Amino acid sequence: MDFSIIRIARTVLHVKDLELSRKFYVDGLGMIETERDENHVYLRGLEEHCHHSLALKKSEKSVVEALSYKVMKEEDLNFLEKLFLAQGLKTKWIPKGEQHAIGRTLRVHDISGIPLEFFAEMPIVERMLQKYEHYRGAKIQRIDHVNCAVPNVQKAYDFYVNSLGFSCSEYTETEEGDLWAAWLFRKPTVHDQAFMSGPGPKLHHFAYTLSDRLSVLDCCDVLASMGYADCIERGPGRHGLSNAFFLYLRDPDGHRIELYTGDYLTCDPDMKPKRWDLNDPLRQTFWGHQAPDKWFNETSTFIDIETGEEINSEEPKLEQRKPKILV
Amino acid sequence: MDFSIIRIARTVLHVKDLELSRKFYVDGLGMIETERDENHVYLRGLEEHCHHSLALKKSEKSVVEALSYKVMKEEDLNFLEKLFLAQGLKTKWIPKGEQHAIGRTLRVHDISGIPLEFFAEMPIVERMLQKYEHYRGAKIQRIDHVNCAVPNVQKAYDFYVNSLGFSCSEYTETEEGDLWAAWLFRKPTVHDQAFMSGPGPKLHHFAYTLSDRLSVLDCCDVLASMGYADCIERGPGRHGLSNAFFLYLRDPDGHRIELYTGDYLTCDPDMKPKRWDLNDPLRQTFWGHQAPDKWFNETSTFIDIETGEEINSEEPKLEQRKPKILV
Amino acid sequence: MDFSIIRIARTVLHVKDLELSRKFYVDGLGMIETERDENHVYLRGLEEHCHHSLALKKSEKSVVEALSYKVMKEEDLNFLEKLFLAQGLKTKWIPKGEQHAIGRTLRVHDISGIPLEFFAEMPIVERMLQKYEHYRGAKIQRIDHVNCAVPNVQKAYDFYVNSLGFSCSEYTETEEGDLWAAWLFRKPTVHDQAFMSGPGPKLHHFAYTLSDRLSVLDCCDVLASMGYADCIERGPGRHGLSNAFFLYLRDPDGHRIELYTGDYLTCDPDMKPKRWDLNDPLRQTFWGHQAPDKWFNETSTFIDIETGEEINSEEPKLEQRKPKILV
Amino acid sequence: MDFSIIRIARTVLHVKDLELSRKFYVDGLGMIETERDENHVYLRGLEEHCHHSLALKKSEKSVVEALSYKVMKEEDLNFLEKLFLAQGLKTKWIPKGEQHAIGRTLRVHDISGIPLEFFAEMPIVERMLQKYEHYRGAKIQRIDHVNCAVPNVQKAYDFYVNSLGFSCSEYTETEEGDLWAAWLFRKPTVHDQAFMSGPGPKLHHFAYTLSDRLSVLDCCDVLASMGYADCIERGPGRHGLSNAFFLYLRDPDGHRIELYTGDYLTCDPDMKPKRWDLNDPLRQTFWGHQAPDKWFNETSTFIDIETGEEINSEEPKLEQRKPKILV
Repeated sequence: MDFSIIRIARTVLHVKDLELSRKFYVDGLGMIETERDENHVYLRGLEEHCHHSLALKKSEKSVVEALSYKVMKEEDLNFLEKLFLAQGLKTKWIPKGEQHAIGRTLRVHDISGIPLEFFAEMPIVERMLQKYEHYRGAKIQRIDHVNCAVPNVQKAYDFYVNSLGFSCSEYTETEEGDLWAAWLFRKPTVHDQAFMSGPGPKLHHFAYTLSDRLSVLDCCDVLASMGYADCIERGPGRHGLSNAFFLYLRDPDGHRIELYTGDYLTCDPDMKPKRWDLNDPLRQTFWGHQAPDKWFNETSTFIDIETGEEINSEEPKLEQRKPKILV
Repeated sequence: MDFSIIRIARTVLHVKDLELSRKFYVDGLGMIETERDENHVYLRGLEEHCHHSLALKKSEKSVVEALSYKVMKEEDLNFLEKLFLAQGLKTKWIPKGEQHAIGRTLRVHDISGIPLEFFAEMPIVERMLQKYEHYRGAKIQRIDHVNCAVPNVQKAYDFYVNSLGFSCSEYTETEEGDLWAAWLFRKPTVHDQAFMSGPGPKLHHFAYTLSDRLSVLDCCDVLASMGYADCIERGPGRHGLSNAFFLYLRDPDGHRIELYTGDYLTCDPDMKPKRWDLNDPLRQTFWGHQAPDKWFNETSTFIDIETGEEINSEEPKLEQRKPKILV
Repeated sequence: MDFSIIRIARTVLHVKDLELSRKFYVDGLGMIETERDENHVYLRGLEEHCHHSLALKKSEKSVVEALSYKVMKEEDLNFLEKLFLAQGLKTKWIPKGEQHAIGRTLRVHDISGIPLEFFAEMPIVERMLQKYEHYRGAKIQRIDHVNCAVPNVQKAYDFYVNSLGFSCSEYTETEEGDLWAAWLFRKPTVHDQAFMSGPGPKLHHFAYTLSDRLSVLDCCDVLASMGYADCIERGPGRHGLSNAFFLYLRDPDGHRIELYTGDYLTCDPDMKPKRWDLNDPLRQTFWGHQAPDKWFNETSTFIDIETGEEINSEEPKLEQRKPKILV
Repeated sequence: MDFSIIRIARTVLHVKDLELSRKFYVDGLGMIETERDENHVYLRGLEEHCHHSLALKKSEKSVVEALSYKVMKEEDLNFLEKLFLAQGLKTKWIPKGEQHAIGRTLRVHDISGIPLEFFAEMPIVERMLQKYEHYRGAKIQRIDHVNCAVPNVQKAYDFYVNSLGFSCSEYTETEEGDLWAAWLFRKPTVHDQAFMSGPGPKLHHFAYTLSDRLSVLDCCDVLASMGYADCIERGPGRHGLSNAFFLYLRDPDGHRIELYTGDYLTCDPDMKPKRWDLNDPLRQTFWGHQAPDKWFNETSTFIDIETGEEINSEEPKLEQRKPKILV
């Protein structure tokens, strides 16, 4: 390939009340506020040396503007534009200077309609890893992955693997051999991007890596003592798939964030993707807990890169059922 | 008082398959097997220097034979006999030598019909606290408490506090001021004995102290990898009441065991019992999780100290409802 | 006995710079500041419902004013006065109102000259155990014990066990059978009061219980990131004796504080004190680390309950050597 | 470059007593024994799906035979041969089948004389990550890095960065701007290979990643209770450099192994290497502990890829002094 995508690098979320969101992510989850203005808050994890991995924009609606991938170098953006145009997909340039604290970006809709953004440049700031006196709540370390519901997982898989150069670490199939869900990566962890079958395109959740399991428990305690027990949606628990210890939270706008720790390194080229069957008893989370219905049914809506309007949802190609293992 | 009860000291459970139970408690939970014979397994926690705190007896039925309290000295047993006889309650002596690895015991039925046992003497064995190479699973430390459902909590409370010398650390009341549940102690922790309103007398659960929260999570992982994920009934989570981090498991016979860590010292005489209202939003577990129905509805049956027959259950005095906070 | 000592309950330390001390104990160690005035700071642990367990007084000298024990009831103080007077030891009453946030106290010098204080009454404040958003640093839970160097451990032991009603959990003897160190308790943990052979009477350290080992590590990280790495004197490590996981710190005045977690319950009357030999290979800390010389040689000086002058140190009765296991 | 090195993948150590080594690594540290024969033991971490990352060979001498790097594909080995030959460095092929459980390997001496090995193929075995019932001791996850003492760090740095394609994450300089130590990586962690100035070439240590800090503490407890407290050389502590929480152990042959957890992701191309000055107060370990002298002075000897004889040590180019921060 003529370009190299490094990793998932940020999400751009619309939120209704900036102050409420800041309190949740900074006081509750322990993110670092790099900068803010009247309409934006820019947040990063303790390990992150880039300006932000979460951009919150004040808005009327709780929607998702973009999922952003960092590429190796500026020219990669041009190659990516060609690739998306060649497949008849919408693209749009945002010149450097137009968005705060990020270089030139290429916005596109991927094969499922998800608004992606690619960039090579973001200001470098201090890594706060050793500023332990600022550790709070979940002590969030760095962005790990995003997970989207799409109507056709096989189509999304093919596009990400064949056109964008992702690899697959684990996947779920139906008994008939249809691809139900897939975990795809660029950086050598279990995933940067997961897809699962469902009405979409929708953002199911975005996820941050923590340094250990106790940080997950500490976060529950802190959120509960702040009066945010309602935010705790699922977990803590252990994923069968990926092996990660997890917790799912809903932020004040209902966006779902996963706290995630304990997956494995995937840099070996001889690693075979791990197959899970929808009927496998191990489909369930490792400890056998059931996820609540809303974890399956509620997702965040994307907006169009040009019009800013909400993207309509399409019914999934595979018959809908409640999969029990999706991460 | 003329006697001094020290602490809850053992439970005597009937189980159908000794080997299966041993595997659950030793390999899964990390208890130490002190001794076994064809019909018994004697288990203790890593910290315990007494012969056992859990006696498993091979039986046709999964019932509870006795909850045992250790007293300060041999003569205390005689005073206790008088006390129970004076209140018209059944008593029975089991001479030293008749039960393995325990001195003379006084068996009684308490005011709610629960089969209690009192003893002063048990063989001393090695404390395994520093035998770290034998740590497994939940790394169970020591017995902490028992929790019983009884039809009249106020009556049980009065008997334990006024006649037996227990103190109350925390309690739950209905809006009408009726006592719904109570946490009572002799050793200075939150409880040795809890009561909650329900059809009874029944054993709701017995509980062991762990040294930290990660031991609870490790136990979930170990049980799941041993194929025992079904045993995990509720949690891990944080109790509002007592503040303990908890996990409820069901052993192979359905007896419920709680893994428990993180309550507080209660030795100060000026400590006032903490009141919880059934309508208090904090009644729920601290993180807001709901307990599953079976946690409320399923309990273990006691047997009569003389006949060995199952004790009938009586409907609770207070109207039954699903309390959300009971520990 | 006609009185009942409950537990070690506070230390009264003189410090040169209140603000510096407050920063160390509150920001670094996570203690809760209950109250302060121009010349005092009153601190407590997250679990403590009493007004304070550490009173810091602004002073010219970094000395120790008193080690305070809580007794069961007000009249116990009168019995204690008689006991000390009968043994020819100095006593002094401080009427209620003269010291802030504590009732009437009896000040005495014990058999080794240590300034002790007894009291029955202290204002009740909120237990902060579930205010997780205020957890910081070591997340200190509650006062655990004090450890004093005295020239004659056997004499101190006899006084505390025979006259004051303490029990012994563990002790160290020389090859000749002389008592080198002893761990004595009233509340059922390994100790409230430890003595070890050395020039004295001196305060070697006072100690707080933490809820787990990670809180110890977190404290090291937080102190180091605050620029206080110099405060870390010994550890983290595991004690052979008591089994506790520990860290020794020196506060800005050089007073030594131990963070301590993981000992065991000592309420059983049939528990035999555990003997350690000075030549036992297990005398060393459990992981085999050597304590630095200053940990043995540097201690805090007590002041006289009447004159306020520094108490002279007496050479130990047993030949001085570097014991490797003293906790 | 025409080849791609993926990561450090194994060490081949000579040990005098296979059984003793197996006990240390398997029972003490929790490694998985994949296979053994009379003269070899093959070990891997819980996360590793390759046959082994540690090969122990029975031998008369406690030396190091090779440090092995995995490459992307078989042909890479040929390119690497050319590269080493072009620089006048010794190379040697070991055909597939000659060594157990590994494909064709290229053995070379690097620019400092270190015996390296490159390979593309190793049998795939089961990842044990979710076999929690087999977790023991340190619960070792995967190989992380090797650290070598070399007489000329700048020369080693230039060779690894310019010829082999490594990147630098952190480095230490003298006041005069001479390179004292460097942390170099291929997989996106802080390092696969570190160099520090000293008599060499010597292996200072090899290191494994653990999943959390408590696994380090658990390992100390387990080793001590197995009678191996002597193996604990330095730590546990926190590195300033890399931020990792660490413990250094000496195996029964004196080979040094580091347990390591908590560094950071290094995949971003805009990450600048972090410079440390030898006079920087932060050179010391983050908590201010001093490393013992033997940590600086004792290292393992390499053997020649052809003769099998011990490689002579050369004095360092920079004046020797005790650096306090080297990881």
